[in-house]
Formats: sequence, C-alpha cells, structure tokens
Amino acid sequence: MERLSQLAIQMTSASSGGPHPLDPLSPQEIKKVSDVVKQKYAGRKIMFNTVTLREPVKKAYYNWKENGGPLPPRLAYFVVVEDGVSAIQEGIVDIPASALIELRSTEGVQPILTPADLQDTENIVRNDPEVIRQCEISGIPASEMSNIYCDAWTIGYDERWGASRRLQQALMYWRSDEDDSHYSHPLDFCPIVDMNAKKVIFIDIPNRRRKVSKHKHSSFHPKHIQEKFGTPENPSGFRTDAKPYNVTQPEGVDFKMQGNVMNWSNFQFHIGFNYREGIVLSDMSYNDHGKIRPMFHRISLSEMIVPYGSPDFPHQRKHALDIGEYGAGNCTNPLSLGCDCKGVIHYLDAHFPNKDGDPTTVKNAVCIHEEDDGLLFKHSDFRDDFQTTVVTRGKKLIVSQIFTAANYEYCLYWIFRQDGTIKLEVRLTGILNTYVCAEDESTGPWGTQVYPQVNAHNHQHLFSLRIHPRIDGEGNSAATSDAKPSPFPFGSKENMYGNAFYAEKTTFKTVKDSLTNAQASTARTWDIFNPKSINPYSGKPASYKLVSTFCSPVLAQEGSLVRKRAPWAVYSTEVVPYQDEDHGYGRLHPSGEHVAQWSGDGSRGMRKWIGDGSEAIEDTDILFFHTFGITHFPAPEDFPVMPTEIFDLMLRPRHFFTENPVLDVKPSYARTTKEVKAGSKGTDSCSLNVDKTSRLAFNATGAEGASSCCSKK
Amino acid sequence: MERLSQLAIQMTSASSGGPHPLDPLSPQEIKKVSDVVKQKYAGRKIMFNTVTLREPVKKAYYNWKENGGPLPPRLAYFVVVEDGVSAIQEGIVDIPASALIELRSTEGVQPILTPADLQDTENIVRNDPEVIRQCEISGIPASEMSNIYCDAWTIGYDERWGASRRLQQALMYWRSDEDDSHYSHPLDFCPIVDMNAKKVIFIDIPNRRRKVSKHKHSSFHPKHIQEKFGTPENPSGFRTDAKPYNVTQPEGVDFKMQGNVMNWSNFQFHIGFNYREGIVLSDMSYNDHGKIRPMFHRISLSEMIVPYGSPDFPHQRKHALDIGEYGAGNCTNPLSLGCDCKGVIHYLDAHFPNKDGDPTTVKNAVCIHEEDDGLLFKHSDFRDDFQTTVVTRGKKLIVSQIFTAANYEYCLYWIFRQDGTIKLEVRLTGILNTYVCAEDESTGPWGTQVYPQVNAHNHQHLFSLRIHPRIDGEGNSAATSDAKPSPFPFGSKENMYGNAFYAEKTTFKTVKDSLTNAQASTARTWDIFNPKSINPYSGKPASYKLVSTFCSPVLAQEGSLVRKRAPWAVYSTEVVPYQDEDHGYGRLHPSGEHVAQWSGDGSRGMRKWIGDGSEAIEDTDILFFHTFGITHFPAPEDFPVMPTEIFDLMLRPRHFFTENPVLDVKPSYARTTKEVKAGSKGTDSCSLNVDKTSRLAFNATGAEGASSCCSKK
Ligand SMILES: [Co+2]
Ligand SMILES: [Co+2]
Repeated sequence: MERLSQLAIQMTSASSGGPHPLDPLSPQEIKKVSDVVKQKYAGRKIMFNTVTLREPVKKAYYNWKENGGPLPPRLAYFVVVEDGVSAIQEGIVDIPASALIELRSTEGVQPILTPADLQDTENIVRNDPEVIRQCEISGIPASEMSNIYCDAWTIGYDERWGASRRLQQALMYWRSDEDDSHYSHPLDFCPIVDMNAKKVIFIDIPNRRRKVSKHKHSSFHPKHIQEKFGTPENPSGFRTDAKPYNVTQPEGVDFKMQGNVMNWSNFQFHIGFNYREGIVLSDMSYNDHGKIRPMFHRISLSEMIVPYGSPDFPHQRKHALDIGEYGAGNCTNPLSLGCDCKGVIHYLDAHFPNKDGDPTTVKNAVCIHEEDDGLLFKHSDFRDDFQTTVVTRGKKLIVSQIFTAANYEYCLYWIFRQDGTIKLEVRLTGILNTYVCAEDESTGPWGTQVYPQVNAHNHQHLFSLRIHPRIDGEGNSAATSDAKPSPFPFGSKENMYGNAFYAEKTTFKTVKDSLTNAQASTARTWDIFNPKSINPYSGKPASYKLVSTFCSPVLAQEGSLVRKRAPWAVYSTEVVPYQDEDHGYGRLHPSGEHVAQWSGDGSRGMRKWIGDGSEAIEDTDILFFHTFGITHFPAPEDFPVMPTEIFDLMLRPRHFFTENPVLDVKPSYARTTKEVKAGSKGTDSCSLNVDKTSRLAFNATGAEGASSCCSKK
Repeated sequence: MERLSQLAIQMTSASSGGPHPLDPLSPQEIKKVSDVVKQKYAGRKIMFNTVTLREPVKKAYYNWKENGGPLPPRLAYFVVVEDGVSAIQEGIVDIPASALIELRSTEGVQPILTPADLQDTENIVRNDPEVIRQCEISGIPASEMSNIYCDAWTIGYDERWGASRRLQQALMYWRSDEDDSHYSHPLDFCPIVDMNAKKVIFIDIPNRRRKVSKHKHSSFHPKHIQEKFGTPENPSGFRTDAKPYNVTQPEGVDFKMQGNVMNWSNFQFHIGFNYREGIVLSDMSYNDHGKIRPMFHRISLSEMIVPYGSPDFPHQRKHALDIGEYGAGNCTNPLSLGCDCKGVIHYLDAHFPNKDGDPTTVKNAVCIHEEDDGLLFKHSDFRDDFQTTVVTRGKKLIVSQIFTAANYEYCLYWIFRQDGTIKLEVRLTGILNTYVCAEDESTGPWGTQVYPQVNAHNHQHLFSLRIHPRIDGEGNSAATSDAKPSPFPFGSKENMYGNAFYAEKTTFKTVKDSLTNAQASTARTWDIFNPKSINPYSGKPASYKLVSTFCSPVLAQEGSLVRKRAPWAVYSTEVVPYQDEDHGYGRLHPSGEHVAQWSGDGSRGMRKWIGDGSEAIEDTDILFFHTFGITHFPAPEDFPVMPTEIFDLMLRPRHFFTENPVLDVKPSYARTTKEVKAGSKGTDSCSLNVDKTSRLAFNATGAEGASSCCSKK
C-alpha cells in the first residue's frame, strides 16, 4: 500500500512526466548521451570518462519553478579521452534532442580519475621488469609479484611531466596473503604510471633503501580477529556484549519523496547526486506556517584536499584533491540495510557511464532515514518541583553517503533538525596511508610509527563546503560575527561594571572582505542573510548562521603545491558573486574544472573568482565557500583501521523565524500549573507523542517508576 | 530473571555489604547525619542546607581499592544555618560512628541556595507594600498581585550589603493567567529579599520606567499551541508528522551495574552524584585485553558562570555561578521514561536533606542507557568494487541528567564510545532570561527583542570541567598540542616543497605554563598523559587528548565581578597540583567553597591554587580544569522556549592503545577478497552482529535490495 501510494506520488512529480530539472541523469539518458558522442567519434577509439547532468542556468530554473515558465533544457556534460590524443574532449549534449551542442578539445589538462582507472594500475605495475627488480631489492622475490599491491593515486603535480601525459603514482605494498591488509607492509619506492600508454614510465627511489617489514600483518577481518583474540571459550575473539539494539517505525517514516524531491517536517529540497560532489541539496525551502520560504539554492561539498606533511620526496605529491581528482560520486559505496544504515531506509541509486559509455549503477548510493534527535525542548517550573513541565523530543532526517578514496572512507551525513538547523557531520574511517620505516629509523615529527615499521605521515582533511544561499529569495549578504567586549573601559559610564559585550557583525562589501579565518578569541561565526528581510521582532535580517569550529588552517607554506592547487583552502571563507557558466549552472569547482595534474599556476577556480577582490558581494547573488576540516596526527589507535573520527558544522536559522519553529511539534509530556494543582494528569495523552516501548533496564517493581511518561503521576 | 541476577550482583558489590566509598549518602545516612547535627543544636532553631558525602582522601581510596587496605572512613559534610546567626555552621560527621568530628562557624560567607530557598521568595515579594506600589506603577493593580511572579536569583554580589545578610534578587514578571509563561511579561524593577528576615529590604528601580507589556503571552503548553495553530481540521495545532520511532533491546542492555559501579564495553567507573556537581564519574579504567588500565580518578563539572552583557544597572548582577550558587544536583529534574530518556533505561535516584534534615528523593535523577553510535569503522577495497569490506556499527553508553536553573534547562550527557572516547554533550534549553523593553526603546547591541517588548540580554554559558587524571596510574602531565608548519622555509633542504608540518607539544612545567587559551590558528588541542607509560609503537606517552572547540572567551573586563568571582573562566585551561583537604578529597571548587555573595576578593579557589604560578605540575598528581561553553546572542527562534542548542567536547585516547581498541567489536558485515572471489557470502553471519529489523521505507520489490546485509549477495 505504502509503495503504491508512493508510486502514485512519483507519477505526478514532474509536470511533463519527465525528470525534474535537477535530477541526475537516468541510465537511459546516459546511454542516449553516449550514443550521440559515439556517433560523433564513429570509427575512432574513445573512452568515456564523465557523463553527467549539466545543471540548468539558475534563472531558467526559477522561471520554471516559480513563474510557470518552460522546463529548462535538459543538458548533459561529458568528457571522453581519445586514444593517442593528449587533449581531452568535452562537450554538451541536448538530451531530448539527441544533439551535440558543444564539443571542445582541451589541451594541457587531464580528466578526473575513475575507479576503473585505478583498478588497471596494479597489473601494469606487477608486470614491469624494473618494478620487479625493485621488489627484489625490497625483499620480495619475483615469484611473489602476485602479492604486490598498489594504491593508485593521482600524481598531484610533478613538474617533470606536468599535464602532458595522464599519470598516476603507485603507492606500493606487499601482502603475505591475499586477505591481508597491505597497509602493514608498505614498500619504499614509487612507480609513475602512464595510464594511456599503460606502462611504468619512471620509478622514484629514495636514497635510503628500506626492506619490507617482516612483522606480521595487522588486519581487521573476522578471521584475523579470531587468530588474534580467539580462545577456546570464545573462538571468534569478538566481544560478547553485542545484544541487539533495534529501531522500528511500525507506521513508516515521516518523510515523503516525490521523485528526488524530499518533504520532511516543513523542509522541502531536491536531492541530487553527481560523479564529483556526490550528494547535492538544491532548492531548499521551509514551510513557515503556509509561507514557503526559500533558504538555499544549492549546498554541496565542492572540493577537498588531503595534504601530507612529510618533507621527504616524493611525499609532497600526496595531497589528493579527492573530489576534483577522484569524485565523491565516482567513489561512492553501495550501502547496506542494517550495516551502513539502521532503521527504516529509503535509498537512491547512482548511475555512471563505464568506459564504453554504457550506464552502470551503484545500488543504494544515498541513504535517507530518520533518527531520534533527543530533547528538542524542555522546561520545568521550579515552583512546583518541576511538575509544571513540557518535554518534546525531536527527530532528525539524515541524507548520507560513504565514499572510498583508496585507503580512506569518508562518511558524509547531511542532517536536518526540525528547528531548521542543517548539520553536516563527517566521519573519517578506513585506513591510514602508510610508508615503510626502517627498524632503526625515526619518523621525526612528520609522522607516527603506528605499528612496527609502519610510518603514518601527518596529514590534513580539508573540505570546501559550497553554499549558494537564497534566504528569503534573491539578494543575500554575508558577514563575520565576533563576540566582543564593550569598547568602553571598566568604570566608564557606558560600561560601569565591565560586563558589557556584544556581537560585532562585519558585513562583507567586497570579495576581499570575505577572505576570513576562524578565530577562537572572538568565538567567530558567520552569518548569511537577506538584508531586505527584517525580523519584525529583533529588527535583524533573516539569517543562517554558520557555526563551524573544526577549521584547521592549511599548514603548507606559501609557494607549496597545496596552496597553489587549493586556493580555496587558504581561508576559512570566501564569498564570490554567482555566475552562470558554459550553458548552465556555474562556479562549481574551486580548484578548477580539471584538477588532475594542474600545476596550480594561472587563474582558475577560486583564484579566478577572487580576482583582485574588488567585486561587490552585498545584497546580491552570492556563493559562500567555507573551508573546514581537521589536522590528523596519527596514533596507534588509528591502525589497522580507524575508529570513526567525527566532526561537524551547523547552519542555524537566526532571526529567520519570529519564534521557536518547533513549538508545534507534539510534546511527549506536558502539564500546566493549573493541571498540577487540580491533580489532573496533564494534557490528554492521546494528543501527545507518547513513547510506548521505552522500559527499565532492570525490571523494577511497580513502585520504582517503571511506567513510561504517559502515565506519570 | 534479569532483575534477580542484578540483585545478586548488587548484594556482593561492597566488600562489607555497606556502601562503596564513593556512593552518595543514602536517605538513611542523611537522616543519621542530621540527627547528629540536631543533637548538637538541641533547643536551637537550625535549617539544613547541605548534607553530602565527604569523599575520601585519594590515597586512602586507592589503598582500599588496589592494595587491600581498610575501607576509608565514611564521612559526611554538612552546612546548617542557625536562626539569627550570620555565620554559617559547617562540619564533618563520621557516619558509622554517628560522631561529629568537626564543627566550625564561618563568618562572611553565605551557603548555596536550595530550590526550597527559591520557592519562598515569591510570597515575600507579593506581600510587600512597596512591591505592590511598584507593580501598580508598572500597570498591574494591587488586586492582581497573585499574578505577580518572580525568578529568585542569587544576588551575585552587591557591595551595598556584601555577604552580611543572606540575599536574593527577585527578577519580576506578570502572568495574565497562572498557566502563562511569564517571561513574555517582565517588569522593570528588582526587589532585594533577605532570606533570613523573610522580607524585601530594598527595591532597585531604574531611572527610565517601563509599563508591563500588553502583548499577548507567548507560551508553549499544548493549550496555547491549540489556540495559536489549531484549525477545524487539526484542532490540536500540532504537526501531524509524528509517527512512532521505537527503540527496543529485546535481550536487554550490555551494561552491568554493581551498585553504582558501571561496567560497559571494557570501561569501568563509579557513578556518583552530589548536590553541587551533579553527576561525578570516578575511578575510571579500561580493560585492555585483561589489563586494567586506570584513566581518570574523577571527572565532573565543577563550576559554571552565566554572565549577562547588559551594562545597565542592576543587570551586572546577573552572572549566576549555577553550580556553586544553586547546585547541578540540587536543581536536578526527575526524569521520565520515553520523554527525557528513550530506549531501555536504568535510573539512579538522588537524595538530599530538606530544611529539617529529613531525606527527600529526586526519583530518576540520573538516566543511564545505550544508543546506536553509527559507524564505528569501515573499509572497502576499490579493487573489487568495494566487495571486500568490513562494516562495524558502534554503541554508546550515556549517563545523563537535566537540571533547571530558574529559567534555563541544562541537559548533560556523558557519552562513552567503545573506542575509549569520552564525550560530554551539553544541550541548552528552557527559557531566556528576559527584561522589559519599552515600545519606543532599542535594546542596543546588548540584547535582542525576541518578542514585542521582550529584551533578552546577551549572555554566556561557561563551564569548568574538572579532570583528575590517573592515566596508567600516578604521575601525569599536560601539554598544549599545536598544528604548526615546519619552521624551515619553502625551498630549504629541510622543507623543499613547503608542505612539512608537525604537532608542537608544549608540556606545562609550572602552573603558569598551563594558563592557556583556545587557538584556532593552530587547531589547538590539549594532551593529558603519563610520561612514564610509553607506547611501544609510537614512542609517545599514553595520553588522553582534549578536543574542545566551543571555548568562548569570557567577555567581561578586568576588574569586573565576573572575572573576580570566576577566576577559572579567564583561561581555557588551568592545571594545578592535587591536594587533599579538610578530612577528604580536595580542590573541588574553583570559585571557592561558598560562592554565594562572594565579592571575588581574596585568595580562594582557582586564584589560590594558581598562586604565583610557580608550582611544578609535571609527572605528578594534577588537576586539569577546562573552561568551555558558548556566547549566546539571543534570537526570536529562542523564544518562548529554546530548541536545544548543542555543543560538546571529547577526551580521546591517543598513544594509549597499541591498536584500534574496537577491532574485536563484532562487525555487521565482513567479507575478504578470497571470499569475494570464491563467491561465498563472507563470514558466517551467525557470528556477526546482524541487524534483523532494519527495512526499506517504501516497500520495494525483491530486486530492489530489500534484504538486510546478512543476505547481501
Ligand atoms: Co586522516
Ligand atoms: Co543562553
């Protein structure tokens, strides 16, 4: 029944029966695009790299959405690599018309690496005679080359080759057995692989050679846990405290989806997904007691960088821009019920082209579910020993994905609270990138020996959150908000007692003003607001406040590849005017369109958008970029697989609503002073959100208060 | 059965059948102590203020616990107020001996305010003729005095009276009806009440008078929501998206309690509770594969301050030290199943003396439960499209309480992750403190008009987390850890590529060194460690890292009451040597023993412990105090009741374990490369932690992947 009504909703979701303009390309559409491209290249050998939605121009989108205008054109952007051609081929296809409307050949750049690109490398490396010789030097005989593994990484940028050839660096490892975790046994040399020529073109060999470690592998698979911890009484070696913790929603979920459009607790937004940014949340609004109030046109993670801190060559090349160089979409995991996601789940699949342009599907790429959100609000009156009370529990909606960047797993949770707060939680897990350390060698301050002969280098995980605000419509501004003592001295008539303080709001007038950093000394936050939408009570503009406290500064120095290739990472915030680009939605990629093997020179991405910093950004169509993340100094606790390290940020509505927006969420319990005095039970529990399943852990007698709150005295 | 086995455990919990040395006083013990005191004061009129456990001297405790020594003496500390006597009477009782072993009369201080103290004030105020006259001036006739309410607050410190009399300031409000929320209707004057004389001794009246607001009350009780949002179709006015979200643990919980001693997922600790700090976690250790490793002797919130930022007299008096002046224990709420706590819960009650010394009980003061903790670790191999994988979900244990400080609710969650992380989450809810604002008046930068004529002043919520570490036993040190670029310039041979960075660890040698502040520019964290316990892999000492990013600096200026009365709030950290005191455990109260009406002058608490800053604090018995919290600039969203504002901090084990300590937690799913190649299902699911209740939100066909992960292809 549920499924049937859901289907009915889906049938009416798009006005013309076709896709919503922001929907990712369907498998059929991918096929259609690749057919158009293949036709153009008939008789030539091409490999498909990217086929993705070219999102509509913003004005065209809202003209359709809000003004009854026509559907924007349905366009796809593609990248193909032609055999023997160094330029990449990119263009735009009009899908309904099956028409190629633009094709260009771009020199001096390299396309994003796909998982398929990474899977080829190991074989190339294993069969290279010089690699075999280097393995022998490391202590692994030629007969064991099938136990040699490599994590194929983007090369970053190496001036010896620049962007002239499509390259990878192969970080080398050994497994004693196919089921080992090879990160216990790194090798000391690094082959450079030409992906088009499919061969090793060079091997970087350190001056100091280090043999492969002979210490036992450290692994995490059940059979290795059994070996390590199993006993006759407990053969599996697993902890025995693993009683089930079940979540059930017998009446189903409170969210509704019409195609990819989510409706939940007054929020409405479109859930998109692409090869690069992964989850994209667009056209987000809040239903404020019947008034639909726009909040954000689009929110996504637009880029990342993971710079490593070892000064030794060639480790400076380890500074993966995972989103631009691999893609949070391309590397996304298929998710599983009860493992990655608990409770009652709705999944969205993701579709990508394979090398031949045929559609492939990652099942369950996006997980959508609700969770209990703990206390949403509470107040009790001390006058009658807290009997006058209201207690309301919240729910949260979570839209999540997990992607694997070689060794690391990035788990991304877009969390919606009923009060209008939007939270992004990141969990880092997976495995440290490791390098071999000789028995008599010190890692120095640049890394940590996390296991015998395993050096995990210091590194950072920095993200660029891209926010395209549309708070109460067009014309938004941004500002820092700093908590500051009154400027008047203690004892002055303006600050007699020295206790006065205020929020200093500094609105960004030009791009230059917006280049700010996190500041603990003023508990800095940032406001994004509509200066024309004034709260009738506070007199302040409708705002979303960015509360973000994990803002590690980039630690590489001026002139480094890191700062050159990630110009957005240098500040905590950058605000630039929005512009449409290239037939569609623009300014998406702050390290440029084609990130792989970019030298970092020239005017691209954020560097170009910042320009001389003079552009006006007040009360206009702005993009707010926020750099956040952590610095990771490894410890043995992170090995052989990391317990999730969690950090988050929030966008909170401030002066957006005229009162607490969750007053109308059903309380779990409520009782007024009069009801307490009359000895009545409080509000009729039928109208309340009474929990009937919570119970005491250790069966108490009745007198112990075993009953749930609906029957509270 | 469960309950029976639990009882059996409890029977054997204390060696002598008596209480654990750190257990809070039982009702019988409170009675015994008050009997001893009453006997001493026979024929005189006394009022009981405090009767609480005097915790044992640290050495005596471990002599009993670890060396088979005798039980430490079971002592109680008490405070009584004698009628007509300005000095407070405080002392120590040996409980088993029913012997008063110390009694002193202390001049010039005032005891903590109990909820009973606060409940008296309203009547005193309502019947005062001058208050009645002032209410008339405010626009409320004498006939309506029963609708006058006051929030009785500690006076802070007012030099006109100092600590000579026991005083409160009465923050005045009007309700049009008993069930209103009076915070919509503040009055402009402030009576000072002598609690012993039970009369108003003065009224602070502002120069500019403001009539009471005639705007309708804004409230949150269901009947007011019905009035505001009810429609014929939806009479209650509540949102209708409120489907049940149920948590069940059919086999019960994974924690075990022996009395107040918790055992959970290798953690062991004692859960105490007192009138002042509320929850106290003591004698915390981790069972590291059979080796019991001490971590912390004691963790608690030792003090708070909530300074307000309006420069106008008498608002500077609003800077409640809620823990020292009211008590997080005294003001704790009785909690309810399914409302405050969801799932399978174990509660602890809290016992306090009433004015007559008789024990009273707050039922369900401490809530203990488990929650799903999301992904604990995951890794998938890109080589076979993420088929080689391990996914493990975590659980967390939560020990929580909620206390009401007049208008505000503080919800405190001590959260344990299976990886050894200890997290403290604070949720602020309840109601803003408000002051009347005339129709034509601006709040200036010092407050926000959150509702017509309601001015909510800027304020801060700052907490002092007190950590008594015992990491791998006695002799601990502390340090800052700052992420810093290599000191060598870009292009130098030590930093050729400019990418090098490291963690600069600065160990505190003396108290002065330990007075540090949060620093965003280096992503500062703090390490607490045992310099003698060196990790065999990393060569670094066993540490717990404090990751705390909500570290608002105190904004009041030098010379202000705030800085004088909360000397601990001036820095993010203070480390001082531990000392036993006054027959028992010492250095508990960083704003001094008796905080109410302390001028802030003289050498007390943290100011005394810091002294000239020269004391050595390396490799010794140290106390680590951490100031954290937020600055709250109110917005209309916070009214008439605040959606919970959430912030947290973490203590993470680093270099404490030699590997990921949760490797032995049962995965939800695991499959090795060989298993993938063999087409087998992966590890026998019987040995895994398979979730059998998760399901899809919208019934998909079988092909849609409806099955939970145990049957994943
Ligand atoms: Co990391
Ligand atoms: Co507040």
